[in-house]
Parts: sequence; C-alpha cells; structure tokens
Amino acid sequence: MRLSQFFLPLIKETPSEAQIASHRLMLRAGMVRQLAAGIYNWLPLGLMVLRNIENIIRDEMNKAGALEVLMPTLQPTELWKESGRYDALGKEMLRFPDRAERELLYSPTCEEVITDIVRNNFKSYRDAGKNLYQIQWKFRDEVRPRFGVMRGREFLMKDSYSFDMDYEAAKKTYNKMYDTYLNMFARMGLTAVPVRADSGAIGGDLSHEFHVVAETGESAVYYDKAFDDIRDGKVKMTTEEMRQLYAAADEKHDPNAIAPDRLREARGIEVGHIFYLGTKYSKALKATLPAANGEQVTLEMGCYGVGVSRLVGAIIEASHDDNGIIWPESVAPFKVGLINLRVGDAKCDEMCSTLYGKLQAAGVSVLYDDTDERAGGKFASMDLIGLPWQIIIGPKGAEKGVVEMKNRKTGEKHEIGMDEALSKVVPPKAGMAAL
Amino acid sequence: MRLSQFFLPLIKETPSEAQIASHRLMLRAGMVRQLAAGIYNWLPLGLMVLRNIENIIRDEMNKAGALEVLMPTLQPTELWKESGRYDALGKEMLRFPDRAERELLYSPTCEEVITDIVRNNFKSYRDAGKNLYQIQWKFRDEVRPRFGVMRGREFLMKDSYSFDMDYEAAKKTYNKMYDTYLNMFARMGLTAVPVRADSGAIGGDLSHEFHVVAETGESAVYYDKAFDDIRDGKVKMTTEEMRQLYAAADEKHDPNAIAPDRLREARGIEVGHIFYLGTKYSKALKATLPAANGEQVTLEMGCYGVGVSRLVGAIIEASHDDNGIIWPESVAPFKVGLINLRVGDAKCDEMCSTLYGKLQAAGVSVLYDDTDERAGGKFASMDLIGLPWQIIIGPKGAEKGVVEMKNRKTGEKHEIGMDEALSKVVPPKAGMAAL
Repeated sequence: MRLSQFFLPLIKETPSEAQIASHRLMLRAGMVRQLAAGIYNWLPLGLMVLRNIENIIRDEMNKAGALEVLMPTLQPTELWKESGRYDALGKEMLRFPDRAERELLYSPTCEEVITDIVRNNFKSYRDAGKNLYQIQWKFRDEVRPRFGVMRGREFLMKDSYSFDMDYEAAKKTYNKMYDTYLNMFARMGLTAVPVRADSGAIGGDLSHEFHVVAETGESAVYYDKAFDDIRDGKVKMTTEEMRQLYAAADEKHDPNAIAPDRLREARGIEVGHIFYLGTKYSKALKATLPAANGEQVTLEMGCYGVGVSRLVGAIIEASHDDNGIIWPESVAPFKVGLINLRVGDAKCDEMCSTLYGKLQAAGVSVLYDDTDERAGGKFASMDLIGLPWQIIIGPKGAEKGVVEMKNRKTGEKHEIGMDEALSKVVPPKAGMAAL
Repeated sequence: MRLSQFFLPLIKETPSEAQIASHRLMLRAGMVRQLAAGIYNWLPLGLMVLRNIENIIRDEMNKAGALEVLMPTLQPTELWKESGRYDALGKEMLRFPDRAERELLYSPTCEEVITDIVRNNFKSYRDAGKNLYQIQWKFRDEVRPRFGVMRGREFLMKDSYSFDMDYEAAKKTYNKMYDTYLNMFARMGLTAVPVRADSGAIGGDLSHEFHVVAETGESAVYYDKAFDDIRDGKVKMTTEEMRQLYAAADEKHDPNAIAPDRLREARGIEVGHIFYLGTKYSKALKATLPAANGEQVTLEMGCYGVGVSRLVGAIIEASHDDNGIIWPESVAPFKVGLINLRVGDAKCDEMCSTLYGKLQAAGVSVLYDDTDERAGGKFASMDLIGLPWQIIIGPKGAEKGVVEMKNRKTGEKHEIGMDEALSKVVPPKAGMAAL
C-alpha cells in the first residue's frame, strides 16, 4: 500500500480526552475515531489489526474443533424471559420496541439464543460434544464508557458455547479451551495469566480469566513468578504444569496459598474468560437430548469469551514506548514500513519501487511512504504506527546501493544491501522464488 | 471436515413458512434458522457461503483501490438531523434512547457517518479521490419481512462512499465501480444486468442497479438479449460496449429505445446499486476541502451498495434444481463432498481416509460423510447442499480401486481411479506436490 493512496489521519498532539496509552495511540495513529460515547469508527489501520486478531482466534478455535456460527445482533426478549435473565443485566442491556411493538434487545451475550438453536436442532447424544462460536458485535450500555476500545459500549467479542452429555465431557471441553486460549494469546505476542475466577453460584473451579499484565490493568492479579519466566522464555512448561501454578484475581486471592518469595502482584487487563455453566441455561430452556439408553439428559454447557476489540487496546498497553506502538508481527497491520527519504530523486524512487514490488510479490505486507513529507516527520509517523520493520532509503544509500533497516522493537539499525534486507522479512520458503 | 463432527441440521420436509426456493433450500440445507421475523441465525454451512461472498467483494474492492473501514451499527441521531434525513426513512429506521436518554439509531445506511469521518479527517485536495467501504450489518424495520434472507430486517451489506474534487473525477470513480461490480458478480457465477435506475432529484444517468435474472425476482427488468449471449459465453464484450446495451428497470423502461426483436423482459433480483450522489450530503454536512488554488470545494460523492446476505439467496434462486442447491465453485462452502457408502468396511474406510487426507493436504475444502446413514439418504443430502463435486466410494469400487465422481451441476457420473479424481479437483499448481 502506498501511503499517498492510504487513509491514515495521524494526530501530532496528545488527544486530551484519552487517559491511557492505548487510547491515545489509537487516536494518534489514525486507527479509530469516536462517533459517540463508547462507540467507535474503525479506520483502515485499526481495522487491519482487528481482523488479524480475529483471524488468529478463528484459526485456533477451528483447530480445537469448534464450529463458527453467527447470531444476529438484535434478538427478541422472549428467550431472556424464559431463562430468567430478562432483568438481570439491568440498563446495560439495551431494549426497545420494533415498529410492530415487539420488544427487541441488542445482544450483550448469547447463552439464550445458542441454547435455543441447540434445543431446536440437536437430535441425539451424537450431536453433543459440539462447541459453537461466533465473532460478533455486542452492545453493553456502560454507565461510564472509557479508555477507548478497552471499555466501549459497542464491542467485538468471540463467544463460544459448548454442549456435552455429562460433566466429564464438559470438563474435557473446558480444558481444551484453556489450552486454546493460551495458544491464541501467545500467537498475539502476549502472555496472558490464567487466574482462577469466581464461578458464582455454579461452584467448582472451572472458571478462569485470562489477564494481560499491564500497568493500566483494571484489576489486581496475583500469580506465581514462574509466569514471568515463561513469558521471558527462561522456563518452558506444559499447559498441564502451568495449571498447577498459583494465579488468582483479587476476590479469589489467598496469601497463604503461595510462598511470599514466589508471589507477583500486578495489574491485569482481562481479555478472556472461560466458564463452566453446568445446566443453568439448558435446564431453564429445556435443552435436553436422548442418551444412548434413551433417557433424556439435560446438556452440560460451558461458555468461553474473548474481547476482540479490547485486545487491540490490550496489545498496545503491553507493547509501546514513548514514540508509539510496537506491534507484534502476528497482528501488525503491515510487516514493513518502506520510507523514501527523497521522493523525486531518480535513484531513491527506483530503489524504493524495486523493493516495494519484490516485497509485494513475496506476499510481505508493506506500507510505502511515497509522500513528500520531511524526513523527521516520516520517521516519527513510522515509529508511531509501530510496524515491526522499517526500511529507509535516502540519496546517499541509494548511491551506494544500500538501505537502512530498523527494528522497531529493539531500535537497532543496520546499513545493509537490498537482498539482505529482503531476506530479513521474507519468510524462507514463501517468497524467494519471487525475488 | 467430517460430517460426524459438523453441525448440519438438514430438514427433509418442505418448510411451510417458505414461499421461494432459496428460502426453502436455506432452511432445508441447515444454512440459517429464523430467530424473529426477518432476523436470522447463520449456521456453519450458511456462514461459510456468506464469508466466501464477502471475500470476493473485499478482494474486488481492494483491487479497485477502495479502503476498508468499519462504522458501528449504532449511531447518534444528530448527524441525521444535520443531513435532513432524520425522518426520511420513517419507521424503517429503528430509533431508541440509551440509558442516558440520548437517541441512537441502528444504521440502515451510512452516508452521514462516512461524510462526518471525511470532513473531520481529510485535510486537503490530496486526500480526495478516496473510496471508503465497509461490510457491516444493517437494520431496516420492513413492514413485511419475507423470502428469508432476501428481504430480512437485519442484513449484511457492502456499502462504499467515494469523495472527489469534481464531477469528472466522481464520474471516473463511478465507472470504476461499474466495472468492479460486473467483475465481482461474474466471480460469483452470476450474470448481473446493470439497469439504468432512477437517480431521483440528483438527475443525470449515473445510477445503475445490478439485477440477477431469476423467475422469483421482485421487479421487472428490460434488457438487450445480448446480455443473455454474454452470460452464455456466446459473445465477448468489453464493459465499455456493454454500457451501450439497452437495460432498464420498470420505471425507466422506454419501449421505443430498443428494437422489439432484441428486447428481453424478465424478473430481476436487485443485488447491487451504484449511485452518483453529487453534493447532497457533503453540502448538508459541510464536507469541503481546499483545492490546489486554496479555494474551498464541496466534495462530489458517490455511493455503492451490495446486498451481501441477500446474494446468498439470489445465487440459490439463480442456481438450483429439484434436488437442491447447485453452488458455483467460487462460493461453495466445500468444493468436494466425499461419500463413504459403507462406514466400517475396511477398504472403504481406508480409501476414504487416504483421499480425505490428500484433498486436505492439497488445500481442497472437503466435507467427508463418515456417518452410517443409508446410501439413499447420503445421496439426497449431498445433492441438497449442492457441493460442486461428489466423490462416492462403495465396497465394489473400493475393491477395484475406483471411485464414482459426480458433477452436481451436470449430473454426469464417471467411474475413475483415485488419482484421476484428485486431478479433477486439485488446482494444477497448488497441490500436486502434496499428492
């Protein structure tokens, strides 16, 4: 993508309405614009990141055998009366009549609708064992929407719901989701600490929140310092071993359960929640299936959420510096930022064009700054939007046939040849034939 | 995907609530389920088709240089007061207060919001010439929602909006979208007739509706028979030549404008609309930019819609038979249906497993019927869901090392070797190394 053709409205000043780094940076980097309190327009750069996150989640859910569905944003309230939750969410749940005076709601969550789908379409125990997920916009009418997309009113969520014939099968599904969540957050460059959370009236220990550690986190998390070592790559552990490590959210923390010298206390941003529901909804909505012996069994459910739009903010909170965002490669909107320091100079233009063409042919996403802004402005913009690699081409280098390559995360810069620059960003197999 | 692991609730009986083929078939094939009048749940098979259509549209829009954004479903009504359209859509536009008693609406279209984004974020004539699009759910509170997803209340739409500095540039953008639309519908296996449509108070001839010809179409379309020849591959024409052909919707039809022996009259399903807006919204919302000479210019706009969820129904209307759906390959949920006629028979199981593995390794999407249903039921189900190719493996064939291969569209069946079957569905380059 050529910057001159792109829509990237950067802001130089610090926006006064933003209190936290991710909100400030998403506005400054032209990723989102607020339309109303807690309701955002996603501009191209922000949407690219959102889609990258969505695709990692989709891929991991599919690998775990979950099946994607899509439920509508607007739903009739009848099912919520049947489940007994019609008033449970209070004013957070937006309800309103349609033109025929039938009451609709904007879905804040989908237990009722998915259970209705299952009771109407599953026929026998052979249909059980399924985990149905969607990636869909939700609405919760927060009293104080704030922190940008971190606590918006209209937000994108991955929510899934599993239906099993007994507790043992439900627990197995739950454990698979636990592993899936660790994988998906790791792929986004995050270490999420899975803390035991309140499972409310349902009881049991099958409730975990996944928290990204960041100074701006909204809640306290307590965890075994081994999680930091794992994140830093100092220790390798299986998920089975990780599950034995101490990790708890505020309300569950027990100082006696962990040696003081192993305890870490930090702020966490909740980005996921997995929860064993038991028969709470299946009982209320009569979602039963005949077992192999013909007996009607009430389905054992679990629900598993990920805050997709919130993750965009959480990743920035966990990965930025004074100059801007530092995207992990897996979610970066472009992998490479190509900077032409002197547009109009024949050698610079030619070298940039060649490199731009080769990167595209190799399938490497690249944003090519082909504008006539000054060098200082170009550097600042590229640092702000946080692409993992910068390739800078100026008249002196072009004369010698070299480029400057900068790693956004480490800040390291090297003057290298064009082929060497390519070899650093083109995956070994994918693109070499194209070069 | 193994059918035993998939969620595909087929219906044998003809659903009484469905009046048209696509609605009946989408229910029977387990693609959608109605949640409320005109509001649908998308089950896995239906969602796969929806996503395939979405991706073709996205790809063609990106090729045309358009940039993807995403506007929220809920919007404040202020902008609609500013544009003068607050009451224009009547009860079709759902409006309701949030908890703070601020009025919101569920977006039926986005001229106001996109114009607001542009006036706040474009700085000079250099930013003009952009075409911003989104693929987002909309809501229109139809009095009589019907025909399944063809006339739903909550529906998925691609809407884009272009902003140019003058009429000539706007016309050029319009023409590019005309070409883009013909390409995208052709890629979906459709011939869409671009009929001149009413451009209302704005005038001019820059308004075209794209109609898929089908018996169940909601409106009359009149067109030069050359369009049929083009669709049938008898004639090749450039888009420039096509634009000279006669084609008109009901209200614009002029019997004197075309020789009677060239006229075709049919029913059409509108799947797209492109429209030159002029300065209608940019004037009302004061979206101006300084030109190169410093003068403030009111932007020339165009808008371009595609009914994404409606297209799922329209494609079925245009492509089905008595046995079920016939998917064009480009939008098919799976390319191949693999039928094991005797699960449990060692040779059948082994041959199916091998083929299933090879197809997956070659990146060919395949639905493997590994259930123990009877042969007749399996054939009927596979015909109903309409995958382009069926590969059928029974005990006799397995003994001889052959499979039966059926083309769903033509009905042709051939007994062939496994490698020959593979070569028919694996793209020449992509997968041969994997075989």
